[in-house]
Amino acid sequence: MIENVKIQKIENRTVKRIEPFIMQAESLKPKLIKDVATPQHFVEVVADSDAMHGWKAISNRSVVETTSLNYGKGDQFILDFGTHQVGYLQMDIRPIGSPPDAPLHLKLTFGEMPVEMAEPFKSYDGWISSSWLQEENIYVDVLPGRIELPRRYSFRYIKFEVVDTSLKYRVAFDNIECHTVTSGNKALVKPLSHSDPILNQIDKVSIKTLQDCMQDVFEDGPKRDRRLWLGDLRLQALVNYETFENNDLVKRCLYLFAGVPNNKGEVAANLFIRPSLVPDDTYLFDYSLLFVTTLYDYYFKVKDHETLVELWPTAYQQIEIALDRLDDRNILKDSDDWWSFIDWHEKLNKQGPSQAVLIYTIKRAIKLAEILNSDKLSFLEKRLQDIVEATFQHLWKKDKGFFVSGSENQISWATQIWMVLAEVLDQKENNQLMHRLLLEQPVIGLTTPYMYHYLVEALILVDEKEKAVNQLKAYWGEMLKDGADTFWELYDPNNKDYSPYGSQLINSYCHAWSCTPTYLIRHYNL
Amino acid sequence: MIENVKIQKIENRTVKRIEPFIMQAESLKPKLIKDVATPQHFVEVVADSDAMHGWKAISNRSVVETTSLNYGKGDQFILDFGTHQVGYLQMDIRPIGSPPDAPLHLKLTFGEMPVEMAEPFKSYDGWISSSWLQEENIYVDVLPGRIELPRRYSFRYIKFEVVDTSLKYRVAFDNIECHTVTSGNKALVKPLSHSDPILNQIDKVSIKTLQDCMQDVFEDGPKRDRRLWLGDLRLQALVNYETFENNDLVKRCLYLFAGVPNNKGEVAANLFIRPSLVPDDTYLFDYSLLFVTTLYDYYFKVKDHETLVELWPTAYQQIEIALDRLDDRNILKDSDDWWSFIDWHEKLNKQGPSQAVLIYTIKRAIKLAEILNSDKLSFLEKRLQDIVEATFQHLWKKDKGFFVSGSENQISWATQIWMVLAEVLDQKENNQLMHRLLLEQPVIGLTTPYMYHYLVEALILVDEKEKAVNQLKAYWGEMLKDGADTFWELYDPNNKDYSPYGSQLINSYCHAWSCTPTYLIRHYNL
Repeated sequence: MIENVKIQKIENRTVKRIEPFIMQAESLKPKLIKDVATPQHFVEVVADSDAMHGWKAISNRSVVETTSLNYGKGDQFILDFGTHQVGYLQMDIRPIGSPPDAPLHLKLTFGEMPVEMAEPFKSYDGWISSSWLQEENIYVDVLPGRIELPRRYSFRYIKFEVVDTSLKYRVAFDNIECHTVTSGNKALVKPLSHSDPILNQIDKVSIKTLQDCMQDVFEDGPKRDRRLWLGDLRLQALVNYETFENNDLVKRCLYLFAGVPNNKGEVAANLFIRPSLVPDDTYLFDYSLLFVTTLYDYYFKVKDHETLVELWPTAYQQIEIALDRLDDRNILKDSDDWWSFIDWHEKLNKQGPSQAVLIYTIKRAIKLAEILNSDKLSFLEKRLQDIVEATFQHLWKKDKGFFVSGSENQISWATQIWMVLAEVLDQKENNQLMHRLLLEQPVIGLTTPYMYHYLVEALILVDEKEKAVNQLKAYWGEMLKDGADTFWELYDPNNKDYSPYGSQLINSYCHAWSCTPTYLIRHYNL
Repeated sequence: MIENVKIQKIENRTVKRIEPFIMQAESLKPKLIKDVATPQHFVEVVADSDAMHGWKAISNRSVVETTSLNYGKGDQFILDFGTHQVGYLQMDIRPIGSPPDAPLHLKLTFGEMPVEMAEPFKSYDGWISSSWLQEENIYVDVLPGRIELPRRYSFRYIKFEVVDTSLKYRVAFDNIECHTVTSGNKALVKPLSHSDPILNQIDKVSIKTLQDCMQDVFEDGPKRDRRLWLGDLRLQALVNYETFENNDLVKRCLYLFAGVPNNKGEVAANLFIRPSLVPDDTYLFDYSLLFVTTLYDYYFKVKDHETLVELWPTAYQQIEIALDRLDDRNILKDSDDWWSFIDWHEKLNKQGPSQAVLIYTIKRAIKLAEILNSDKLSFLEKRLQDIVEATFQHLWKKDKGFFVSGSENQISWATQIWMVLAEVLDQKENNQLMHRLLLEQPVIGLTTPYMYHYLVEALILVDEKEKAVNQLKAYWGEMLKDGADTFWELYDPNNKDYSPYGSQLINSYCHAWSCTPTYLIRHYNL
C-alpha cells in the first residue's frame, strides 16, 4: 500500500482496544525462520541506458577474494548477495597494519536495485521521508571484532565505503552475512512445473516476494512502510493459501485489525505493531470492506468456524459503516474529502469502483451470514438488491457500454474491473465489458500492481484466461526482464522511470501487493 | 600524548606476553563509578571574535522546557550539559501527531567546545582520522522508545538535528541523560581552599580533567586517542596521588606496560586495551625511561615493595636499552630516524633533552636499586658519573650558559628544563640557568601542556615558586579565561587558533597531560 501525498491526519479520535482479540493475535505471533545468506559477487554499477533506471550491476570479482583484500580511507566496494534478502547484517572486521589507533568510520548503503548503489541518497528530495533510504554511518571503536547491525534491511546489494581509518591501518572484512528472517517456510511450498518458463519464473519471484514480506505480520514492503495494510493483507493471504499456508498468520492479522477499531467500529487501513499495537489514523472505504473479504477468504480456506463467529460482528460493522455513505439513491456519496484507495491515480474518481467494492463485499458477507444463520441475512440481501439496482440505474451507461463514476461520469479501468468482479452484469455482459475495456482503453488507466491483480482476476472471471496470461506477462513478465528479484511496489511498463515519490531511490522493490501472480497461476491453473 | 605526523609503523616485531603481569593487571581492573548528568540549558552558538576559536555558546532557554517542545524535519537545537562529561547518552523519544509511519533520522553531534557545534565536521581535512569527530546518524524504527547509544562520548554540548521524520509526525525528547563513567572517586579528593581564587579554580578544572581521563586505564584523552600513554601516565599518576588516590590504577597500568614488551624488553609508548591487550608499534626513548620514573613515584608513594621487586627487571631493562644508544663519548647518538617525544615541536632537536631524561632516570633507578640492594647499583652509579661528565664536556656551553643539543648546537627550552630537572648543575647554577632561560627566551620554545608542566616543576625545583605560579597562571589560567571546563591537549596563549592537526575540531579539550596544576599546587604548596 502507498499513501497519497494528500495524507489523512486525524487529530482527535478514539481507539477501542478489544483485549481478547489483541491477546488472541499475540498468541499467534509466529516464530521467525532464520537463515544465513552470503555475498555472491563483487559488482560494479555502471550507466546503461538500456537498463532499468539507467544502471546495471556487473559482476567483476568473486567474493572468495574478500578476505585477501583490504581497504583504506576513501576505498569502496559493492557486494551482491545474488538475490533479494531481508535480515540483519553481520561481519568480522580485521585491522591490517598497526593496531587501530582511531575508530573505523564505515558507511554502508543497502539497495534492492542498482540505482540505490549508483545515485547518492543526498539527491533524494521527495515528499516521503528520506529516513527510509537504507544507509548507516557506523563508527567501530574496537577492532578486530564482529559487527552485528541491530536494524533489519531489505536489499540485494550493499555498498561499503571506508570513510576513514587512520594513517596506521587498513581494514579487511570476513564472514559477511545476512541473517535472514521470514515467517514463510519455503519447504511447505509445492513446486510448480509449468510448461511456460516465464510463468514458472514469475511464480518463483512472486513467492520470494511474499516470503520476504512475511514477518511477524504480513508487511507491505520490507524496505519501506513495513506495515500491515488491509488491502495488501487480502492479497497476501490469497497467495499464502497457495504457497506457505501460514494460515495462523492471516488469522493473527485479522485479530489485530479487529482488536483496535475506532469508536465507530471501523477498522483502520493499517496498523503499527511495535512498540505496541496502534492503528494508523488512516481509514479507507475499500480497505475497511476488505476486512470482510479477507475473513471470507480465510473461512472458506481454513473452515475456522470459531474465528468466523468471533470476527463476524467486526466484519458486519464495516458494511454498516459503508452503507451509511449511500445517498437516497443508494449510490455512494462522492466528495473531495473521502478516502477510498482503489488505485494510485491522481485523477481516478473513487465513487464507481467503491460502489463495486461494496457490492462485491456484501455478496461475500451474505455467504458468511448464511453459514452463521445470522439475523442480518435478509437485511443484507435486501440492501444488495437495492444497491445493484441503483448501480444499474445511475452508474451504468448503456450507450457507452461502461460504468461511470462521479459527477463527471468518469470512465475508468478501475470502475469496470471492480464492477466485473462484483458481477453486477451477467457473465456474458461481463465478458463483453472486459473486451470493450481492452479495446477502447479508457484514459484513466491502472498504475499499481495491486490494481493489475484485479484486472487479471477480472479477465479470468470472464473466462478470458489467455488474455489474463497476456496481461500478467506484459506486466510482471516485463518486470522480470527489467531485473526484478522480487516484484515491485510500482511499475509502469510504458514509463519505467516513474515514481510518485519524486525519486526511484525511495520506491520499494519488494512489495506484497505485487506478489499475486502465484495465486493467479496456481489457483486458476493458468 | 600526541603523535607526530611522521608516524612509526613497524612491520615486523615480536611482542612478548608476560602472562602473570597481564593477569595481575586484569585483577586490578577498576569498577567504574557511574553517575547521571542532565542538560542544563539550550544554547545558541554565535560568532564572537573575542571568544576562543571565534565561537561563543549563549544560553537561551532552560531545559525544563524540553518536554514541551517538539521538532520536525530540519529542526535543530543544542543542549549544554553545563560542564565536560564522559559517558553514554540516553533519551526517551516521543512521537507527536500521527503514529510514526517512517523511521526518525536523527543526527547527533557531540562537542567539548562551541567550535564543534558551529563548524561542520565535513570541513575537517586534517591528517589524523576524521573518525574521531563525534557524530552519529541514527535511525529509530520504533517510537516511542528509549534510545541508549552504545558508544562513549566526551562532550559538554550536543547538537540535535532532526534530519527527517515524516509528514505525519514530529518528535519530542524527554529524560535526556549522560550516564557518566570514571574510576576517579571525587568523594576522596580533599577540598582545597587556596587564598588565590585563580589557583583554586585551576585546581578544580585539573581534577575534573584527570577524573574524566580515568577510565579502566589512565586515558590520554576521552574524546581522542583514549589510550594509555606512558608519558601521560607518569603525570596522571602524580596528580592521582594528590587527589583520587586510585593507586591500584597506577599499579595496573605499570603491569600492563610490563606485560607486553618487545623482544628487546622495551615497553611501548602506548597500549591498546580492547579487544585484547596489544602494544602500539610506537616506541619512544623518553617514554620508555618514564616507566622507571613512574615506578619510582609509585614506590615512594605507596611503598608497595612486592610490585617494585616484580617490575624492577622491566625498569632496569629500559635503562640498559637507553644506554645502548650512547656513543663512545657517552652522548646519545642523534639521527633523523630516532624517536624521543619530549615536546610537540617540529624543530626541536631531541638529543639534549633526552640525555637529560636519561640522567634524571638513572638517578631514580639508583634510589630503587639501593632499596632492592640490587647488584646493578654500582654499575648505575658508574654510568651516571660518566654520562654526567660527558654531558658537561659536550653539551654544556659555558660561554653561552646553556646546554646544547644536536650537531647544530641547538639551544632549546626543553633541553634546559630537563637538564635542570636532572640536576646536572648544582642548585645555584640550576637557578641561574632558569633565570637565563626566562630572560633570553630561546626561539625553540614549548608547545604542549606536557612540557609546560616540566617548566613549572623546574622553576619550583630552583626555588622560584613565584615565577612558577606566574607561568602556571599565564598558561592554565589563560585557558580558564578561554572557557576550559577541562584542560586541553594543546594550547598556545599567543596563537590560540593553532592546531597541529589542521583543524581545531579534532583537538582534544580534555587531555590528561594538561591536568598537572593540581599536583604542582598541592604537592609543592604553591
